[in-house]
Amino acid sequence: MRNIRATLCYDGTDFSGWQIQKEDRTVQGRIEAALAAVHGHPVGVIAAGRTDSGVHATGQVIHFLSDIDSIEGSRFREAINSGLDRDVRVIESREASFDFHARYSARVRIYRYFLYFGPVVLPHYHRYALRRYRRPNLKKINRMAGYLIGEHDFTSFCASGDESTSKKRVVFSSCFYPQGDFLVYKIAADAFLYRMVRNIVGTILECEEKAMPAEIINDILAARERRRAGQTIESRGLFLDKVLYDGEEKSL
Amino acid sequence: MRNIRATLCYDGTDFSGWQIQKEDRTVQGRIEAALAAVHGHPVGVIAAGRTDSGVHATGQVIHFLSDIDSIEGSRFREAINSGLDRDVRVIESREASFDFHARYSARVRIYRYFLYFGPVVLPHYHRYALRRYRRPNLKKINRMAGYLIGEHDFTSFCASGDESTSKKRVVFSSCFYPQGDFLVYKIAADAFLYRMVRNIVGTILECEEKAMPAEIINDILAARERRRAGQTIESRGLFLDKVLYDGEEKSL
Repeated sequence: MRNIRATLCYDGTDFSGWQIQKEDRTVQGRIEAALAAVHGHPVGVIAAGRTDSGVHATGQVIHFLSDIDSIEGSRFREAINSGLDRDVRVIESREASFDFHARYSARVRIYRYFLYFGPVVLPHYHRYALRRYRRPNLKKINRMAGYLIGEHDFTSFCASGDESTSKKRVVFSSCFYPQGDFLVYKIAADAFLYRMVRNIVGTILECEEKAMPAEIINDILAARERRRAGQTIESRGLFLDKVLYDGEEKSL
Repeated sequence: MRNIRATLCYDGTDFSGWQIQKEDRTVQGRIEAALAAVHGHPVGVIAAGRTDSGVHATGQVIHFLSDIDSIEGSRFREAINSGLDRDVRVIESREASFDFHARYSARVRIYRYFLYFGPVVLPHYHRYALRRYRRPNLKKINRMAGYLIGEHDFTSFCASGDESTSKKRVVFSSCFYPQGDFLVYKIAADAFLYRMVRNIVGTILECEEKAMPAEIINDILAARERRRAGQTIESRGLFLDKVLYDGEEKSL
């Protein structure tokens, strides 16, 4: 038996999220089907982040156990890709030690949310970014975003359906920055609650739009009540960007 | 009667090109359907460039005659967009003088072709750029591209089916430049022959790959024979970027 680690890239638009489902097309479902074709029997896969319906990934990390000896670790990439549709690709694969676990060994997860502004939804951006009519005040939303840094109970930003017992998470960085035509929100944390990033982005933009003081984010956080925060923003702008493991935190 | 000029943006992936067809979904077909809904009767549309199947546009220009007095020129944008799918949008509209013709008044058309390199086709780039395994020598392909600048007979780069009597065109600029993860080819000319940009990009990349001398492009051009040039490259990386009219050439 060998433990194989791989990095995935996918366009989430036509997937019902990561997690395998009976009827719907999911990333896990497609990966496991491709792995079954390579192995001749079912192979289960674990991912670092179970992305929601419509969420993209440029650096999702997975692992699976393989009983194939004849394929080099780095060659699993081609083997799996040959059984996948064009909207999901393995970009890198390698053999890992048996103590590597894509989910439990992960130390940092980094998500990015892409926004752009103007009166028209642009066809080439539509799948990968959310259009807002009005450009927010960058200084103000960055003050808001800053309140999230550190260890906090994120119950206010957690959607119902989250199965984790503790809602405490450590946010290492949280900020908005301009990049070409886009305004990008980047957040790095040890782990995330269900829909946490989309709830954070939705809340910050809503509070800025309603001209609330930046400190409101602090109050919402302290309240530990989902109804105090704003709306969940659409998934189309969200990317699971990168997952860092022991010894990789420097690239944060 | 009023003459309305508008700029279009579209994702060409799911269109059978610009030109209206009985069965297939085309950009012209969708725009004319949206205009018919606004006007209550058929309205014909003329475009600056009749883009081919799968080719994108960020700055296609059209004009049409309208008998509606109650809509301001700039408001045709919303009126048309409300009848369009998300993969085509009017980004700007205005009233123009009657001597403005989207096709015949155009002085410069600018196309861009997006390439990226590496062993894996990336899901988020797949609709809008072509992946090549090997990165070409930038200096060499730019020497090749440079031979196309000026007035030439482009028969060698013209696909069969082109209806223009003269194959002479004036190329104002032709070069490759890196942009983020991409290598972009930009070409500006007074007008283009059928599949000319895709034939140029395909030929340059093929000649570079076969380690031919840069001067081969000059020879191919001088030969005025389509079979001397290389293959037509895929349409997915091609964008009609901009069309310039009298007095706008400075933004070249």
